[in-house]
Amino acid sequence: MALATDLYELTMAAAYFENNERHRAVFELFVRTYPRGSCYLLTAGLEQVVQYVLNMRFDDESIHFLRNHQAFGGVTDGFFEYLRKFRFTGDVFAVPEGTVVFANEPIIRVVAPILEAQLLETYLLSLVNFQTLIATKASKIVRAAKGKGVVEFGSRRAHGPQAALLAARAAYIGGCIGTSNVLAGHELDIPIYGTIAHSFIMNYDTEREAFEKFCKVFRTEPAMLVDTYDVVQGTKTAVEVGKRPSFVRIDSGDRYRLSRRVRKILDEAGLQRTKIFVSGDLNERKIAQLTLHGAPIDAFGVGTELVTARDDPALQGIYKLVAIERNDIWVPRVKTSPGKQTLPGPRQIFRKFTTNGKISGDIMGLADEKPPQETVPLMQRIVESGNPVCQFPSLGETRRYALSQIDALPTSARKLQGCVAPKVRLTQKLSSLAASLYARHHAS
Amino acid sequence: MALATDLYELTMAAAYFENNERHRAVFELFVRTYPRGSCYLLTAGLEQVVQYVLNMRFDDESIHFLRNHQAFGGVTDGFFEYLRKFRFTGDVFAVPEGTVVFANEPIIRVVAPILEAQLLETYLLSLVNFQTLIATKASKIVRAAKGKGVVEFGSRRAHGPQAALLAARAAYIGGCIGTSNVLAGHELDIPIYGTIAHSFIMNYDTEREAFEKFCKVFRTEPAMLVDTYDVVQGTKTAVEVGKRPSFVRIDSGDRYRLSRRVRKILDEAGLQRTKIFVSGDLNERKIAQLTLHGAPIDAFGVGTELVTARDDPALQGIYKLVAIERNDIWVPRVKTSPGKQTLPGPRQIFRKFTTNGKISGDIMGLADEKPPQETVPLMQRIVESGNPVCQFPSLGETRRYALSQIDALPTSARKLQGCVAPKVRLTQKLSSLAASLYARHHAS
Repeated sequence: MALATDLYELTMAAAYFENNERHRAVFELFVRTYPRGSCYLLTAGLEQVVQYVLNMRFDDESIHFLRNHQAFGGVTDGFFEYLRKFRFTGDVFAVPEGTVVFANEPIIRVVAPILEAQLLETYLLSLVNFQTLIATKASKIVRAAKGKGVVEFGSRRAHGPQAALLAARAAYIGGCIGTSNVLAGHELDIPIYGTIAHSFIMNYDTEREAFEKFCKVFRTEPAMLVDTYDVVQGTKTAVEVGKRPSFVRIDSGDRYRLSRRVRKILDEAGLQRTKIFVSGDLNERKIAQLTLHGAPIDAFGVGTELVTARDDPALQGIYKLVAIERNDIWVPRVKTSPGKQTLPGPRQIFRKFTTNGKISGDIMGLADEKPPQETVPLMQRIVESGNPVCQFPSLGETRRYALSQIDALPTSARKLQGCVAPKVRLTQKLSSLAASLYARHHAS
Repeated sequence: MALATDLYELTMAAAYFENNERHRAVFELFVRTYPRGSCYLLTAGLEQVVQYVLNMRFDDESIHFLRNHQAFGGVTDGFFEYLRKFRFTGDVFAVPEGTVVFANEPIIRVVAPILEAQLLETYLLSLVNFQTLIATKASKIVRAAKGKGVVEFGSRRAHGPQAALLAARAAYIGGCIGTSNVLAGHELDIPIYGTIAHSFIMNYDTEREAFEKFCKVFRTEPAMLVDTYDVVQGTKTAVEVGKRPSFVRIDSGDRYRLSRRVRKILDEAGLQRTKIFVSGDLNERKIAQLTLHGAPIDAFGVGTELVTARDDPALQGIYKLVAIERNDIWVPRVKTSPGKQTLPGPRQIFRKFTTNGKISGDIMGLADEKPPQETVPLMQRIVESGNPVCQFPSLGETRRYALSQIDALPTSARKLQGCVAPKVRLTQKLSSLAASLYARHHAS
């Protein structure tokens, strides 16, 4: 796990070690821009971050590999001894998983000897970028479904098997009711859903025979797939064979028209309780259209578009040095490259709410500032001196918290089209500090 | 690993088991449409597929989980006993990893008892879809670089840590010269590259001090990052401090203009051998522009756009039933849902070459057909009765083979803009068979 990182994290660590740089530094993880069409970020991935930070170790084989790699030619044995004994000893602060944040706001803050803080960068980003991206996407899809369930169905199109698992987790935080991924059920206790595939129907000479074989095993309220050959005929056969199907799934074709025909067939057969489940290349826009026109659909399965965040598949989260400790004094740091400016830190998010509990706007300030009136600071300490200092909520609790966060967003921020992100103001102290640091760099 | 699948693979398996369906089936994995702007697919992921197929096991904990899950209410103990003893006993055929294929051509064929073949679906797709997507994308970026090296740099934006590793592998097959991912160096023997990050520069009061500290450890031909504050000044300082930098990296700004200025500074200092490495939100189009205008860039680092295949992040590979065995006779199967028609199988790809070794076109036929004149069949048996029957080439060999495959593409198929995919014809036998099966379904 410790080698799952960019080479430069390790060469920088070696340079810090050899130069005896043992001072602490503050790094902050944040996202500069929203995914396309989004005006908020639903944060996810924090629990894996903490697991990683607390368990990061270099085993003998890894150290052997590094020691013998030409990139470490000038590095002394001391560094490899350091790696062998590596334990994270610093502090981690973060907004609780499932919190809504806005562009440039810190999601995680690491305060640790610079070498330790540096080594975490790549892995932290790969965890938080992906899960935050998918949780945000899921929350949009779930909103489009207007209270109908959304099941994450995308394992086969995820970027590998681990991405499938992480996507299932993030999608659940984002409000999905479950996943098709069995491992996510086993490891993360997420509800799992499934029906049958077209191949099962195609294995038999007739659709009827396939339904009969399936219902012989799954007798009670079976779930039937009805679109292998013809949806109307498939539904009629499902009604005859399935007795009381729990739901029928339509995976192709004009799902508005088909769902209405299927509903009619079910109702005429007295199967008012049988639900209609629809899937096949769905996304928030298609679902919004279906719900807008009142398609009688009870649940949606969303795969590809959700687990790859297909319309904008890369969240540009970054992890930046914002302060270093010099003789027990924290010295702020900024980057001034064009288009890549950063704010100094450590920072805190102070959130304001309206009387009815909606987010009315954030104020970003320095961590040691007194919270502005009627604001709540969002970042909390979760690791102290290398030890966890809080209990993680269950995934179900995180999901409920995330849903309440989305509910608290101003309507304008969560519109599926033409959203507007809430303004984030800077405190006087933070903006003056940033201005003076930029000016100093431009002068030098 | 066995639970990293969709629930319906397991419920279908249970239904097959309980109905005593022990016959063999043929499934084929193929891709219906190209990634945006591509006219070929560079296949990757096969080695992981074979590892998975040969090692798929259900441990006690997994079986305990399934047995107690409500989804398996009607399933008997026999099925769980079957899972406990599960070993793949079938055959796998595939085109060699790194082979170029076209839309709808089979990449992998599984011939096995239907229950076994079904259980592989989700995991196979998640491996092959992602790696083929990234290898294809990498091959386009590498071509745009016109012989200059491309290094995969995207771990932090990949869809989780495993996606980062798989992306590094696929990008290397696609022609990248290496990766920043250390684990890919350790596990897969891929060359690893790195410099320093902006944070390292920012840790010190001046860029000069940062360079000095770095060069104290990495004395011989250090790699320097010159754009933290000002590229021209940074390069001058790097020249003074670094003595003979192996390369300087520019990560932001107008990289055409900056690379020319930097080249001039280096040349004037007699550092003709110091290379210029450029990174920062690059893709095949930006690289093509830079090389077209003769920017003096020696190598490119490409991250986000490569590892997420940002412009089209989901390869729509599918795994379909194409034949089942009935009383020792293979019966072809097709799916006829609108827009989701499949061809019957098992199929073979017969490839034709021009006299100078270019691919002149493919003919898709049935596996038992005699290869049409002057064609080479591409699919080979790689697993027989559950045992591997070929040695995998090294990753370096696969990469060289893939590069030769891209070279063999018609120029029209590998144009970065307005590419045209080669025509794939069907043999008379395959097209007649498909037509008769479609007609039969429409009649019934």
